[in-house]
Amino acid sequence: MDKNTQTFLACTAEYEVSDVVLFGAPFDGTTSFRPGARFGPSAIRCESIGIETYSPYCDRDLTDCRIFDGGDLQLPFGNTQKVLELIKRYTAKLLGDQKRFVMLGGEHLVTLGALRAATEHYRDLHIIHFDAHADLRTDYLGEELSHSTVIYQAWKLLGDGKIHQFGIRSGEKYEFEFAEEHTIMHKFDLGTFSKTVGQLKGKPVYFTLDLDVLDSSVFCGTGTPEAGGVTFKELMDALLELHKLDIIGCDINELSPHYDQSAGSTAVACKITREILLQITK
Amino acid sequence: MDKNTQTFLACTAEYEVSDVVLFGAPFDGTTSFRPGARFGPSAIRCESIGIETYSPYCDRDLTDCRIFDGGDLQLPFGNTQKVLELIKRYTAKLLGDQKRFVMLGGEHLVTLGALRAATEHYRDLHIIHFDAHADLRTDYLGEELSHSTVIYQAWKLLGDGKIHQFGIRSGEKYEFEFAEEHTIMHKFDLGTFSKTVGQLKGKPVYFTLDLDVLDSSVFCGTGTPEAGGVTFKELMDALLELHKLDIIGCDINELSPHYDQSAGSTAVACKITREILLQITK
Amino acid sequence: MDKNTQTFLACTAEYEVSDVVLFGAPFDGTTSFRPGARFGPSAIRCESIGIETYSPYCDRDLTDCRIFDGGDLQLPFGNTQKVLELIKRYTAKLLGDQKRFVMLGGEHLVTLGALRAATEHYRDLHIIHFDAHADLRTDYLGEELSHSTVIYQAWKLLGDGKIHQFGIRSGEKYEFEFAEEHTIMHKFDLGTFSKTVGQLKGKPVYFTLDLDVLDSSVFCGTGTPEAGGVTFKELMDALLELHKLDIIGCDINELSPHYDQSAGSTAVACKITREILLQITK
Amino acid sequence: MDKNTQTFLACTAEYEVSDVVLFGAPFDGTTSFRPGARFGPSAIRCESIGIETYSPYCDRDLTDCRIFDGGDLQLPFGNTQKVLELIKRYTAKLLGDQKRFVMLGGEHLVTLGALRAATEHYRDLHIIHFDAHADLRTDYLGEELSHSTVIYQAWKLLGDGKIHQFGIRSGEKYEFEFAEEHTIMHKFDLGTFSKTVGQLKGKPVYFTLDLDVLDSSVFCGTGTPEAGGVTFKELMDALLELHKLDIIGCDINELSPHYDQSAGSTAVACKITREILLQITK
Amino acid sequence: MDKNTQTFLACTAEYEVSDVVLFGAPFDGTTSFRPGARFGPSAIRCESIGIETYSPYCDRDLTDCRIFDGGDLQLPFGNTQKVLELIKRYTAKLLGDQKRFVMLGGEHLVTLGALRAATEHYRDLHIIHFDAHADLRTDYLGEELSHSTVIYQAWKLLGDGKIHQFGIRSGEKYEFEFAEEHTIMHKFDLGTFSKTVGQLKGKPVYFTLDLDVLDSSVFCGTGTPEAGGVTFKELMDALLELHKLDIIGCDINELSPHYDQSAGSTAVACKITREILLQITK
Amino acid sequence: MDKNTQTFLACTAEYEVSDVVLFGAPFDGTTSFRPGARFGPSAIRCESIGIETYSPYCDRDLTDCRIFDGGDLQLPFGNTQKVLELIKRYTAKLLGDQKRFVMLGGEHLVTLGALRAATEHYRDLHIIHFDAHADLRTDYLGEELSHSTVIYQAWKLLGDGKIHQFGIRSGEKYEFEFAEEHTIMHKFDLGTFSKTVGQLKGKPVYFTLDLDVLDSSVFCGTGTPEAGGVTFKELMDALLELHKLDIIGCDINELSPHYDQSAGSTAVACKITREILLQITK
Repeated sequence: MDKNTQTFLACTAEYEVSDVVLFGAPFDGTTSFRPGARFGPSAIRCESIGIETYSPYCDRDLTDCRIFDGGDLQLPFGNTQKVLELIKRYTAKLLGDQKRFVMLGGEHLVTLGALRAATEHYRDLHIIHFDAHADLRTDYLGEELSHSTVIYQAWKLLGDGKIHQFGIRSGEKYEFEFAEEHTIMHKFDLGTFSKTVGQLKGKPVYFTLDLDVLDSSVFCGTGTPEAGGVTFKELMDALLELHKLDIIGCDINELSPHYDQSAGSTAVACKITREILLQITK
Repeated sequence: MDKNTQTFLACTAEYEVSDVVLFGAPFDGTTSFRPGARFGPSAIRCESIGIETYSPYCDRDLTDCRIFDGGDLQLPFGNTQKVLELIKRYTAKLLGDQKRFVMLGGEHLVTLGALRAATEHYRDLHIIHFDAHADLRTDYLGEELSHSTVIYQAWKLLGDGKIHQFGIRSGEKYEFEFAEEHTIMHKFDLGTFSKTVGQLKGKPVYFTLDLDVLDSSVFCGTGTPEAGGVTFKELMDALLELHKLDIIGCDINELSPHYDQSAGSTAVACKITREILLQITK
Repeated sequence: MDKNTQTFLACTAEYEVSDVVLFGAPFDGTTSFRPGARFGPSAIRCESIGIETYSPYCDRDLTDCRIFDGGDLQLPFGNTQKVLELIKRYTAKLLGDQKRFVMLGGEHLVTLGALRAATEHYRDLHIIHFDAHADLRTDYLGEELSHSTVIYQAWKLLGDGKIHQFGIRSGEKYEFEFAEEHTIMHKFDLGTFSKTVGQLKGKPVYFTLDLDVLDSSVFCGTGTPEAGGVTFKELMDALLELHKLDIIGCDINELSPHYDQSAGSTAVACKITREILLQITK
Repeated sequence: MDKNTQTFLACTAEYEVSDVVLFGAPFDGTTSFRPGARFGPSAIRCESIGIETYSPYCDRDLTDCRIFDGGDLQLPFGNTQKVLELIKRYTAKLLGDQKRFVMLGGEHLVTLGALRAATEHYRDLHIIHFDAHADLRTDYLGEELSHSTVIYQAWKLLGDGKIHQFGIRSGEKYEFEFAEEHTIMHKFDLGTFSKTVGQLKGKPVYFTLDLDVLDSSVFCGTGTPEAGGVTFKELMDALLELHKLDIIGCDINELSPHYDQSAGSTAVACKITREILLQITK
Repeated sequence: MDKNTQTFLACTAEYEVSDVVLFGAPFDGTTSFRPGARFGPSAIRCESIGIETYSPYCDRDLTDCRIFDGGDLQLPFGNTQKVLELIKRYTAKLLGDQKRFVMLGGEHLVTLGALRAATEHYRDLHIIHFDAHADLRTDYLGEELSHSTVIYQAWKLLGDGKIHQFGIRSGEKYEFEFAEEHTIMHKFDLGTFSKTVGQLKGKPVYFTLDLDVLDSSVFCGTGTPEAGGVTFKELMDALLELHKLDIIGCDINELSPHYDQSAGSTAVACKITREILLQITK
Repeated sequence: MDKNTQTFLACTAEYEVSDVVLFGAPFDGTTSFRPGARFGPSAIRCESIGIETYSPYCDRDLTDCRIFDGGDLQLPFGNTQKVLELIKRYTAKLLGDQKRFVMLGGEHLVTLGALRAATEHYRDLHIIHFDAHADLRTDYLGEELSHSTVIYQAWKLLGDGKIHQFGIRSGEKYEFEFAEEHTIMHKFDLGTFSKTVGQLKGKPVYFTLDLDVLDSSVFCGTGTPEAGGVTFKELMDALLELHKLDIIGCDINELSPHYDQSAGSTAVACKITREILLQITK
């Protein structure tokens, strides 16, 4: 008899033959406000049975793709450096094996682990960053490693002109001032995304999606729901362009499922995960 | 002293003098994912005291209408065929007595009971179907009677070209292919509804409204909340055209009130019930 | 050692040097449906640490303002007249001390206490009223003092042509008829707000914001969530015009935080409070 | 066709032939902390379908009793005096018609309305009071009519030595001192209840049950859940003695159903209501 | 790389070498009141990581046992007969392979499927039944297959004197009368359980545990929480005797996890599952 | 005008004249399962207005005590060592100023910070530890600083025979074995507490109370609710003996308020905080 295997919807390929690897990074140890993003990956897997493998948006079906679901990394709470190291090691192996990947957070800081591997692998890496928050703080209560400093940390790895931020509508004043000099920030919405896609064609791109870029009406299942965000349709329209880019890896983070009793936020995350998987699988 | 009578807002007419009959079909026995639509009808009645009898949308008042609230059918769980038979019998009596009706689900399969009566009564019956899901599966885990097969079952009763689907954004690939040949499907939104209204004028129409056609931001109190749907205003604009049609019966289904702790979804269902009652009462 | 002082985000000025005073009126004693607005002010203070002091919308920072947070009034439940008297006395003192103020409700009736003081202070006072409900009932179950009669009571103080209502989409028929003769009502949305701003320049204005003017998708944390309302962006666009007016006082009411488990509604209220504070602080 | 009549389980007798009348007093207007007891009566009716008519505790069946369910009184919020007057009038009629009654609160103050009628009808009336709180305050924030003053108010009607309090474990110091002189208080539990029953045989007794006498583990669905209370079995054992007394009326109050998402507290209230009805029906 | 395998705590043995098989029967299709027991098995697996493999109660450790977790059966909603057939087939295979088993419900009717297999395998089978409800109805709204008829159905398979019921405190009057003649019912508690254990030594026993035998204070995460039940310690004391019996199979049913937001009920179910596994594993 | 000061019920003394200091340590950064204990201190303060200052259990009143509420420490998430250092520094100052203290957690690891200060101050320090869990792990996923290792860490500071554990009912096998040699563990309940009190008279004692020592029926608002624990009355009886000891400091930890929607768990924590304050204030 078979054991009980739990994967995201239809992601049942073996690792060796897979094009894309899905895995979870259930860490929320630097979350300063409402924790719970650690429950994101398992919620997305569990609830994925509520949606279909077929997308009428792009007319493709997950059952036609070869995706391996690696489960969740086992990450120790209370030791942030070690968590990032474990994420880096795992993604480094994936990149070495020529796998594209989708990492399910967890809080936004998990991105830094993946970026540490990706910047070692790719020279001219660009980042596309969808978020409500600038995440450009230099520290949070004295700590340099935090969900609210992650893009500043990314900038330290990548340098000026490589980070393309969209949907930003919250942050300290100095973060917005920093962005004017060092990143390419598109405030409030995704209106200019198509143009950025055109500019980045052919270059290696890491895509980091903080789901709170969505309006809190669509996505309240997160630690700091933010009104004034993009609609599901606006986000979906942007995602449908991802296949035009060379996405080498991406992450979907900050679902904190318990804050949305209706499970609507998790359903949103499931659909977005499906669409991203369909976009980056060739 | 009077007993405690509970009706939907102002639906206090006696059966004999009523134009329209409201009743509940509290069944969710084939729901495959999150059950609870059985609690829909009673929630809609209870919460209806939170809204007004007057609609500023159509400038009409429920107190000027003659509507009988028949309470809920008593439906046995675990026996799907019998449930459908009980619904059919009840609606057959209403049709025989020249009553229009609004059935409050319950899961979407309850529609089939009403349709079995309606198709015996009306030859050239058309169906208008608002939903997030195509509901055109031939079976679900081997079962032909399911919330996800109900429109396929309707098609077996009515044949090609009679089913007008709007707002559909989820389904298996083969459902969309089936729709291309056998139903008239308008994907994603209600943009083309006015045109359909024009085409169906004068014909008997059954209107089935799966409330998950609404975006999950507006309506998360349902078993499978679906992002990417229509806004409340878009739905309301469509409903305000219903009086142009000869609606012989309709249903409003898939409210599962417990999943929306704020009761906002139930409030949405109450308003929609009020508007539909105002539209179909002459 | 310092005691534990709790204020809204950065509202730490002393009373004497402050331009603006923030205070709470935690009363919901006439709420006829779902109570809980009494918990609004403390929720807004607590959750304000989840947002930033800087607004990218108007490029201003709360840390540059002088705002005193006076805490909550202690209001006895069960004695509506006394509650209104206590609110009146407090606001009268603020007006006497040349302070602008933001009162956090509580239910909408708290507005009447503030208006009783404001109309004694200002002759040609106008009211801007954002709400889903007309609030023009003459009584509720025989009671003249109620959340649903508050604007009718305001009219008794102010007379015709002084009350500018926006976003109204619910009410008894006679309320809408009353509005046609005695107030200036803009139904359903805020589309015409800019024009009203132009007309009221230079006049003293009291602004009363019932948060249920927002669509229930954005703001379900309230006693009677109302679909069909304005989006957060539409409300924000209107608020960004407030600095053009001479706002002598305002209130933000009807947040009932427990109905929105995700705390998204409270986050909305926090952001709106920040923006209003930034708008009315010179 | 019949209208939708909603009664407590099997309480379907007509008024004229009934021995006992059940009715609701959905008022919580003086609740100082967490409101919601207004939803108690309707929750008890709705959820009563989840229990059986038969009690294995006393081997009796509700279907053998003649009980009329009068529905809920319509009580205006914001006017405490009027609420008490409406309750008094209704119970006075019941007493005049020789009906015993069970009033479902609502907050504890509703008891005062019933007592005002009962003390006019019966000379030597005694009160049995089960509660976590002494409810002997002279005022609350200056208000004499409050859920926390109700037994003090009862004492003003009845005088010394008539009020038998059980289970009390919370109160101001002066309340306990007052009790030592004016009431008969049994702190913490119901251990001495049998003895009191012996003493009161043959005398008219009003029984007021604040459900928070139960330990908060059994009954958390109330505004101020109180640990350290009696178990369900201890309460049930006491209730099974009620038939030995001449209970002329009673109330069951302070269920606030929304605070117990599991509906367990409402189920407790339903069972207790059933047992009390069986005990006082001859 | 390994796939994501989800088992109950430490139940990682292969089927072939296992002594005991754990599996889920996620069906709640005849639940008449509040559905959700279908989510029981997955909740128990997920939450099992919150408890330890070691039991200080019996000083044994799950890591020393050989238990196979077979995952959940895939059961179609809406077809009760087929569901029972699928359960019967699965348990028949287990019995044929000399495996003891623990089935996680699901509603209580799932027991019938297992019993249909067990009675074919064992002649002198006895049933130990812990429950709040007698479950001896002959039908429910005309349906013979229901959670409330399951022990009556068991009696039809087994005959008089084979069913030992404990903790029963709810039922129709006729159910209690039936029990007096045909089953061995111990009302209200488990006080006499030790004696029954003595009587059944050496005989094949099927143990069915409806978790609502627990007091609703301990276990509110179920469709019909029942006050007046046994404490966790009383239940645990009984379970610690199970190793004296020849338990050939058992089930643990009626956890409906969503009704207990604190997850305390699921934690109770996890501990009980651990203890039962430790008891029946030799 | 005064600012809004928030203290625990009646803890309004100035620091200089206070006997006892209350403060919060809102940290849950090593919580491995369900986080949220960071919200404990603020919940206890907010909800303390729902209980009285007077205790009928010990007939004392908080208004007669001199207690300073120092608010919450500001602790950075993601850096466990620094958090412990900040707690140590604060408690060291209190000890230096001859203040007894009550620290409100947060997770159980916060105890270690206080102990690091206390062991520098007192030679023959003993610890009384009430808990469901042994907390004697040597590490958790490789981390030595964790809520589940805290008593092992305490043992490293204090040595054998100084740690008195009560109520323990969960742990790895090796933790129980460790306890047999190095601590004094009383499993399952508090039955032997009086004897320990007798033994420790006159010695400096640190009291650490993990609230999950309570049965999960009484206290479900915690990350890992544990059935089989002590009742509220059993805990209260033990607490009422504390005044016989020389408690130099204590902590009350692991309230995670959001998991108990009814706020009953927070009310339990408030009452326990009141009783402990009354016990340790001379």
